[in-house]
Amino acid sequence: MSVRDNVRKMKEVSPTVASLGSEVRDRALRAIRASLEKHREEIFAANREDLARADADGIADSVKKRLKFDEHKLADCLAGIDSLLSLPDPAGRITLKRELDEGLILERVTVPIGVIGIIFEARPDALVQISCLCIKSGNCAVLKGGRETASTNKVLFDLIRGAAASAGIPEESLLQASAHSEIDELLECDDCVDLLIPRGSNAFVRYIMEHTKIPVMGHSDGVCHTYVDAGADFSLAIPVLVDAKTQYTAACNATETLLVHRSIADSFLPQAAKALAENGVRLRGTAEAARILEAACPAEGPDAAAKIAGEDVMGEEDFRREYLDLVLSVKLVDSVEEAAAHINRFGSHHTDCIITEDDEAAERFMTLVDSAGVYRNCSTRFADGFRYGFGAEVGISTGKLHARGPVGLEGLVTYKYRLQGHGQTVGDYASGKRSFHFRDLARE
Amino acid sequence: MSVRDNVRKMKEVSPTVASLGSEVRDRALRAIRASLEKHREEIFAANREDLARADADGIADSVKKRLKFDEHKLADCLAGIDSLLSLPDPAGRITLKRELDEGLILERVTVPIGVIGIIFEARPDALVQISCLCIKSGNCAVLKGGRETASTNKVLFDLIRGAAASAGIPEESLLQASAHSEIDELLECDDCVDLLIPRGSNAFVRYIMEHTKIPVMGHSDGVCHTYVDAGADFSLAIPVLVDAKTQYTAACNATETLLVHRSIADSFLPQAAKALAENGVRLRGTAEAARILEAACPAEGPDAAAKIAGEDVMGEEDFRREYLDLVLSVKLVDSVEEAAAHINRFGSHHTDCIITEDDEAAERFMTLVDSAGVYRNCSTRFADGFRYGFGAEVGISTGKLHARGPVGLEGLVTYKYRLQGHGQTVGDYASGKRSFHFRDLARE
Repeated sequence: MSVRDNVRKMKEVSPTVASLGSEVRDRALRAIRASLEKHREEIFAANREDLARADADGIADSVKKRLKFDEHKLADCLAGIDSLLSLPDPAGRITLKRELDEGLILERVTVPIGVIGIIFEARPDALVQISCLCIKSGNCAVLKGGRETASTNKVLFDLIRGAAASAGIPEESLLQASAHSEIDELLECDDCVDLLIPRGSNAFVRYIMEHTKIPVMGHSDGVCHTYVDAGADFSLAIPVLVDAKTQYTAACNATETLLVHRSIADSFLPQAAKALAENGVRLRGTAEAARILEAACPAEGPDAAAKIAGEDVMGEEDFRREYLDLVLSVKLVDSVEEAAAHINRFGSHHTDCIITEDDEAAERFMTLVDSAGVYRNCSTRFADGFRYGFGAEVGISTGKLHARGPVGLEGLVTYKYRLQGHGQTVGDYASGKRSFHFRDLARE
Repeated sequence: MSVRDNVRKMKEVSPTVASLGSEVRDRALRAIRASLEKHREEIFAANREDLARADADGIADSVKKRLKFDEHKLADCLAGIDSLLSLPDPAGRITLKRELDEGLILERVTVPIGVIGIIFEARPDALVQISCLCIKSGNCAVLKGGRETASTNKVLFDLIRGAAASAGIPEESLLQASAHSEIDELLECDDCVDLLIPRGSNAFVRYIMEHTKIPVMGHSDGVCHTYVDAGADFSLAIPVLVDAKTQYTAACNATETLLVHRSIADSFLPQAAKALAENGVRLRGTAEAARILEAACPAEGPDAAAKIAGEDVMGEEDFRREYLDLVLSVKLVDSVEEAAAHINRFGSHHTDCIITEDDEAAERFMTLVDSAGVYRNCSTRFADGFRYGFGAEVGISTGKLHARGPVGLEGLVTYKYRLQGHGQTVGDYASGKRSFHFRDLARE
């Protein structure tokens, strides 16, 4: 059967899947947890096949690291399932209960979205994590993993679907697409798939976003900024900046651009550049920033690395760059407003921070910057569902509709309106025979 | 300047517009109200020009009715502004406040979406309504109206923008696009426009949805169903059905298809058909429904109209039809499950109702039907923001993301996360030197 036929069948079964109680869903998660643990050796063996193939194909080490599914990754997956089990059911919450007129009661209730398509590169742990999130929230899931982890994905998927079915979840509610051509087929199922969640590189996510009519939740770029204001405490600014740039450079919430208020640049920039250089960071920046560092740093010795080399002097459009590496762009600005305008224009609306002791400047920055996360005096690396206390993360969205920023389980539900009456007709209200009186009721 | 240049400028100014307080926005609404009232004769004169042109062009009467902007439409617009003035600011609400660790405070705050594009056909009152909704919610708006009301739109827009500017809203935050070619230009501004709201015919809305990467909020079809269950009280079912079909046939929430449980069809269908025929409704339906009516209704006399004529016997795919007229499709089903499956497959996920005294059947129907509104024992015509007590309606969405069903002002806001610290770094949490403790705080 083609992906389209399978997905259509999934769409038909999705209301039934949505109607299963949270006991069934939690039972399925426990069965999956037990099955993954019991069959660990099978999973590791399949993963060794994938890794051997990667070796033979000369795949880069950084990618191989993400392909690997070992004891450590399994433990993370099991802990993730435990965390999901401890979370309340995101569906079935009554968010509005209103009497429109006597005996005419409106409720707004959260319900699963329906059919979620997940397309991910390389990481087999993403398959476990996202299929469990979909099960917990009552959704059906089509999973499309990367070719590099085909063996691991197959074992994991079969274990997950088998365990879920043993707990009473219909088999049609989980589907693995394995052929590469099936990505494009899936992207065309906009009549059956309600939401797509891509997980992978920028180019990969951007491809998905540009080739489908299905709503996509996620982000391609993470061009985050740290702006050091005139009112900054340097002793706070420098460690925060170093953390934001270096704590994990491959993350989307790592800072890629440093903006500095021009009035403090002569004193702050050399200190910051030195601390960054000590942490292995190479600076790129405007000609102005390069001149300040050239004047302040000795030509020889360890601090020479804190300069900006000639080839690293940047033009305006270079500021869109996401390095995901120990490289940082630097630019000077004259005001909070100029910093915000730069961030709104060249950033990715992910997470941006101001370092300042000035309350008014902080408020202005956090209001004017149009990003999912606006921070003051802390590392941009905090932008993460676990660090926000959501317990489970679907992903981080830089879109503004539905969900923004780190998205927890509530990003996988929508709502419906339930209206119960006793024969009421609109004609009676239009004619004035009856009239509405709105009264919000306790939601039990 | 091209639409693209103007919209880019609007995008740049949008954070400033979003930062204006609700006093400024309400002052602008009051100024608009006063200006429309003061310049009523100018508006009516411009509208007479449009109507004369429509006459000359031989525009259909049903369209001309929607072009008309008279005392009555003006009064509706002014009442709409009054209603908006009485509503709370949708932006600036704190929906989460959490201590992640000592001195590290996370807040989630609602904020305007940014730049909204509104494309509407024919109705000049829509221009007033939607631009006022955007102003109330702190958004910028690009308005593209139909060619037929160009004169009226121009006067209305100039009055609205002038009054808003006098109250302190930047002029760049409101833009009227008038040339028809500008629709396609606007549809391509996905880097600057955050949300599109189309208002018009099905074909028009579908065109918008299919020709842009910008998220679209709205609905094209409204194929609503009323399902009369085995457990229905006929004396309740018939007036509700007549209201749902006939109270205002041009509305998207009017019922287009009647489903009847097979076990009651022989008794219910002839009674319902008679009542519907008396209200001018022509029935179409399956061969089975036609046979029942043929057998039950006399060949002559007034009740002969309650039959299904030979050319009105329907095939399966015909059930996707939205009549927006005094025509109703009829089909028999064997169960709540079959009714729900038909609705999910052939409906538009707008609003669907079960008529039954059986609580279990009602619950099953309301769970299995995947629509924005699931009703019991009342007319589908209740699906409307005003009838839900929202005070103002942006539109009705049949999508599942962001907003679903009738959408009030809250559909025009998103949120951002604000995180305030005192120098916290992620490294300290990764190393175990510090750890998170999540504690929700009172949101003042």
